[in-house]
Amino acid sequence: MEKPNVVTCTAPVNIAVIKYWGKRNEELILPINSSLSVTLHQGQLKTTTTVATSRSFQEDRIWLNGKEEDITHPRLQSCLREIYTLARVFGVEGELSGIARQGSGSACRSMYGGFVQWIMGQKDDGKDSLAQQVEPETHWPELRILVLVVSAERKPVGSTSGMQTSVQTSCLLKHRAESVVPGRMREMIKAVRRKDFAAFAELTMKDSNQFHATCLDTYPPIFYLNRVSQQVISLVHRYNKHYGETRVAYTFDAGPNAVIFTLQQHVPEFVQVVRHFFPPETNGGQFIRGLPVNGVALSEELKQAIGLESTPKGLSYIISTKAGPGPCVVEDQHLLGSDGLPKKTD
Amino acid sequence: MEKPNVVTCTAPVNIAVIKYWGKRNEELILPINSSLSVTLHQGQLKTTTTVATSRSFQEDRIWLNGKEEDITHPRLQSCLREIYTLARVFGVEGELSGIARQGSGSACRSMYGGFVQWIMGQKDDGKDSLAQQVEPETHWPELRILVLVVSAERKPVGSTSGMQTSVQTSCLLKHRAESVVPGRMREMIKAVRRKDFAAFAELTMKDSNQFHATCLDTYPPIFYLNRVSQQVISLVHRYNKHYGETRVAYTFDAGPNAVIFTLQQHVPEFVQVVRHFFPPETNGGQFIRGLPVNGVALSEELKQAIGLESTPKGLSYIISTKAGPGPCVVEDQHLLGSDGLPKKTD
Repeated sequence: MEKPNVVTCTAPVNIAVIKYWGKRNEELILPINSSLSVTLHQGQLKTTTTVATSRSFQEDRIWLNGKEEDITHPRLQSCLREIYTLARVFGVEGELSGIARQGSGSACRSMYGGFVQWIMGQKDDGKDSLAQQVEPETHWPELRILVLVVSAERKPVGSTSGMQTSVQTSCLLKHRAESVVPGRMREMIKAVRRKDFAAFAELTMKDSNQFHATCLDTYPPIFYLNRVSQQVISLVHRYNKHYGETRVAYTFDAGPNAVIFTLQQHVPEFVQVVRHFFPPETNGGQFIRGLPVNGVALSEELKQAIGLESTPKGLSYIISTKAGPGPCVVEDQHLLGSDGLPKKTD
Repeated sequence: MEKPNVVTCTAPVNIAVIKYWGKRNEELILPINSSLSVTLHQGQLKTTTTVATSRSFQEDRIWLNGKEEDITHPRLQSCLREIYTLARVFGVEGELSGIARQGSGSACRSMYGGFVQWIMGQKDDGKDSLAQQVEPETHWPELRILVLVVSAERKPVGSTSGMQTSVQTSCLLKHRAESVVPGRMREMIKAVRRKDFAAFAELTMKDSNQFHATCLDTYPPIFYLNRVSQQVISLVHRYNKHYGETRVAYTFDAGPNAVIFTLQQHVPEFVQVVRHFFPPETNGGQFIRGLPVNGVALSEELKQAIGLESTPKGLSYIISTKAGPGPCVVEDQHLLGSDGLPKKTD
């Protein structure tokens, strides 16, 4: 058997601050509005993908988390078809976000590090619906990100079917896409470039809220925010109000987990506030994961100003992270062996 | 002392199916959109007001639920001023909804029975912002209304300040008022006139959801629906889906309580479904109040089709009622004695 060519690549997660919700073309995955995200650092969250190719292999196969998946899935086939064409003609180099988009819309923004916009484009064939870096991850080193993982009870509506129903039934979503998002994209790009945290934070919160508002305007309505999510929202607004300035922002995707943006100097206190109102299980593993967070004491005044009721175990854990680079080719960590099959991992 | 003139009047509650949210003039209480409501029967819910007038009285005083309140409240003064003028010139007869509106916007719709629209009007002085009966309470005798009283933990944001913040910050609310509600008013009036329950029900649910969506689009966001409210919404949609037709509708105002519309024939089963998924406290008083509801057995198939997790004590009680008439003058039940002071009630 010919020795296979094995390549391994890691890719980041991204969190939208101007949200993508709704497609104008389901097959090509073309959105009804542009969006903007922050790429998270791979030191805390990443995917690892190994590709093994060989003339000796008889068929395409794919494993996800060690479990074989259906290779005939249309979105997977779209990506493979595009990659083959590209590889045959140019080698796989250059603009790849258009291909990533066809796997999962928001994934195209993970093709770059830092602050990334997905320009919706105008063309019917989607050739101009691409991701573009607005600023690299080095642009705003003080910016910190906390992922507040909510102890969720139920599986929410999936985003693919959720956004389909929204496009079909929500008149507010249409208005948002056409009349609200274009201005917000310009404002957000300006705020990022200027590192204007208050402007960035307020737009981020407003856009998250508006996305969830369009979910509620969907028929039947979709709820992604649960009671803990609502409490995190209250906590953030009361924290900011207490200081008379916008120090912290939240954003929520299609689920109850909160993603918090703040500046490095506010992380220790804010994390302590969160821990105070969502006391973790005492022996439930590490509550704060990722970038280290110093402990601080909270003033009684601050606790009283926030004055939420305590929700023990409302959060499972917090991931402390920051903006990071795009996909990286790595030399070790191959997940497939020289036979092209998953290595045993246990 | 001259014997006072004593008049007592009862007035109904109304529930909007096209929602009022947002004023274009705070002082005159002029809304940013028209709205439509159903007046509830006073056999279940009503207010009772006694007015005593006498030349011997030295000042205006008011008691609410036996407790004296501040008579200088601006809205109260607006109403008194208007009533005095009217009484002096014409006697208090004729169009009174314009006065009621200045006490509390949505109260103007309680000046008529049955199905009532509040026409927003165009004039700056508000003279054309009035309530009008669309159909009387006798029009749709099969229509039934269930008020599901949620065991609420916290006091929600008041509607006066809530709608102010929404008008100032929600771009979706502006769009709703200008571009969505006018069409919905026409559709709703048509559905009521034709007694088209499915059309009435779907518009009612969509409009409730859109109102709550604009609350979420408010900055900071306002949440009126809690976990129990969300579960009632799911329950209604699953119930309708099971039967392949819209048999039940929900609507929510500025709080977590659900108001359910259905037809007489579906009441016993739907109430039993609600009781099944929100099992009441065993010795917590009467769970179903108001118009009697027959007991029925539920099929396992229906319970499984709905398949919600059970929330014991999520609801405090249910008020079973129907559409009813407008305000009534009553000859007994005076709350004030011949001295003009509240009678002792204990």
